Amino acid sequence: MSWDALLGDLRARKMAALARAISVVENGRAGFEKLLIAIHGDLGRARRIGLTGPPGAGKSTLTEELVSAYRAHGFTVAVVAVDPTSPFTGGALLGDRIRMESVALDDGVYIRSMATRGSLGGLATSTREVCDVLDAAGFDRILIETVGVGQSELDVARSADTTILVLVPESGDGIQVLKAGVIEVADLFVVNKSDRPGGREFAEDLRSIIALRLGESQRMPAVVLTAASIGEGIDRLTQAIGEHRSHLETNRLMERKRSDALRSRLDTLVEEKLKDIVRENGYIQGRLEQALDDVVAGRISPYRAAAEIVRAFKIKKREGGPTA
Amino acid sequence: MSWDALLGDLRARKMAALARAISVVENGRAGFEKLLIAIHGDLGRARRIGLTGPPGAGKSTLTEELVSAYRAHGFTVAVVAVDPTSPFTGGALLGDRIRMESVALDDGVYIRSMATRGSLGGLATSTREVCDVLDAAGFDRILIETVGVGQSELDVARSADTTILVLVPESGDGIQVLKAGVIEVADLFVVNKSDRPGGREFAEDLRSIIALRLGESQRMPAVVLTAASIGEGIDRLTQAIGEHRSHLETNRLMERKRSDALRSRLDTLVEEKLKDIVRENGYIQGRLEQALDDVVAGRISPYRAAAEIVRAFKIKKREGGPTA
Repeated sequence: MSWDALLGDLRARKMAALARAISVVENGRAGFEKLLIAIHGDLGRARRIGLTGPPGAGKSTLTEELVSAYRAHGFTVAVVAVDPTSPFTGGALLGDRIRMESVALDDGVYIRSMATRGSLGGLATSTREVCDVLDAAGFDRILIETVGVGQSELDVARSADTTILVLVPESGDGIQVLKAGVIEVADLFVVNKSDRPGGREFAEDLRSIIALRLGESQRMPAVVLTAASIGEGIDRLTQAIGEHRSHLETNRLMERKRSDALRSRLDTLVEEKLKDIVRENGYIQGRLEQALDDVVAGRISPYRAAAEIVRAFKIKKREGGPTA
Repeated sequence: MSWDALLGDLRARKMAALARAISVVENGRAGFEKLLIAIHGDLGRARRIGLTGPPGAGKSTLTEELVSAYRAHGFTVAVVAVDPTSPFTGGALLGDRIRMESVALDDGVYIRSMATRGSLGGLATSTREVCDVLDAAGFDRILIETVGVGQSELDVARSADTTILVLVPESGDGIQVLKAGVIEVADLFVVNKSDRPGGREFAEDLRSIIALRLGESQRMPAVVLTAASIGEGIDRLTQAIGEHRSHLETNRLMERKRSDALRSRLDTLVEEKLKDIVRENGYIQGRLEQALDDVVAGRISPYRAAAEIVRAFKIKKREGGPTA
């Protein structure tokens, strides 16, 4: 298939082209930069919704319910399920994916699991780029589901337009959620399995904790009670997602969010390209080898050696002034 | 306190100097590079032992038992407990630390929790540097305990001379352990809580899986059965750790391991210093701002923009040939 044909088929949301384009981007295979450059102008139509939360919070069931709800409204939906990076706790997602095949028979739905790590700029970057491909393919909603067990999964969730933190009444999440800046990450909270004992009290406690933490200056995020397994609260949830989106748009926060994300991606890409130079430059590699001997022998510390090597990098200002 | 006095007190293992030095290094505070440069020649005496594994495997109890065993042999012991990076599952460690205060009353023991992230080169780097300080302070054994829920914790464990993977008979770990290259990371396996039903069978299954995975060319790592809560199997474990150390030394693998670790640290430091240049250079920042406008407007992709900016970096070969 030619390059132009691939792009054409991708924009027409043909599944084979979509799968191929995603695979190229996810694995950083030949042409992935060219592909991302080509679709860059198409981006920004899809609404990206991230779901994260501790294992067992029912995120997959909730995702499935959201897919059905958006389909019922006539939207096409893509789901990107990011497998946990943990080598120890990886069992649940596969089963969840199989269960989700009920909605996967619908050709307005596309489901993709991401397991790749170590691609250019890490999991958050490659997830964002896979979402870009889905955006270019014309999906109206992109749901990004992560098991929030590590920083990288949190970064993934944060790359969405609306980030939803899914909690459950039990398991002490009410207290744990106070840690590590999680409240600040979430645009919207879901108390799932809220039909369990203590569900309403948990939601009230959560609201108090959020209000206390954010103070009065910030918008209070919605706390939505759901019971995904019986389909309860899903309409309230899609409504709350829509309201958050309106909030972003009326306050011109959407542009800011996009711009921040692009700035951070640009920074990452510059860093990655500098790493490539380090890896591929014979002179620098030679300097590194020499320095290593001295470092191993204890004659020089790695800090001093690194500072020495970096001195070889000079910044050459472009003549003729800046052009795009 | 003067700089020389701090170094002197650190080498004499005075607790106040130790705490201060660790804090300087952990948080990358003023003088941390100078400190690491000063102690670089002292390193390599301590044996570094990493323990990782899924939550609930009993790593803290095992660590505590190892501390007691090494103390009984007359060794000084430092414990570095790396808090999980997860914002959701962070509750257990604090309780464990409090429990460990029984051994902490002994002044041949030093316990430190690491929670800092985002320091120069990430958690694995800062943990390694804290261990360097403990090494310079003359601790004979350094135990690095992580909850292995993410890649960064695995990297931390891997930075030890001997990496121990702690598993428990239940919870399907026998299958999960096959994932993501975990077997290759471990130098030694512990089946803890092995007095539970199915403990021996689990250990046998684990041995088969390891043998199948590693093939005949590689050394078969020991699988040690323990029941840390009743102190069982700890002597076998310290013996297995000692045997792994001997294996490293007789096969000259210790030098290789150290050299690999220093090479990777050198690479990281060069990358970090290049990032600093990007962040601090006015011309590059100006180029980034200009490029961002074009990227946000969809006129240029972040990939093309990054490639453009990186072109400003030139490598200037040093005249007069290499010197250390």
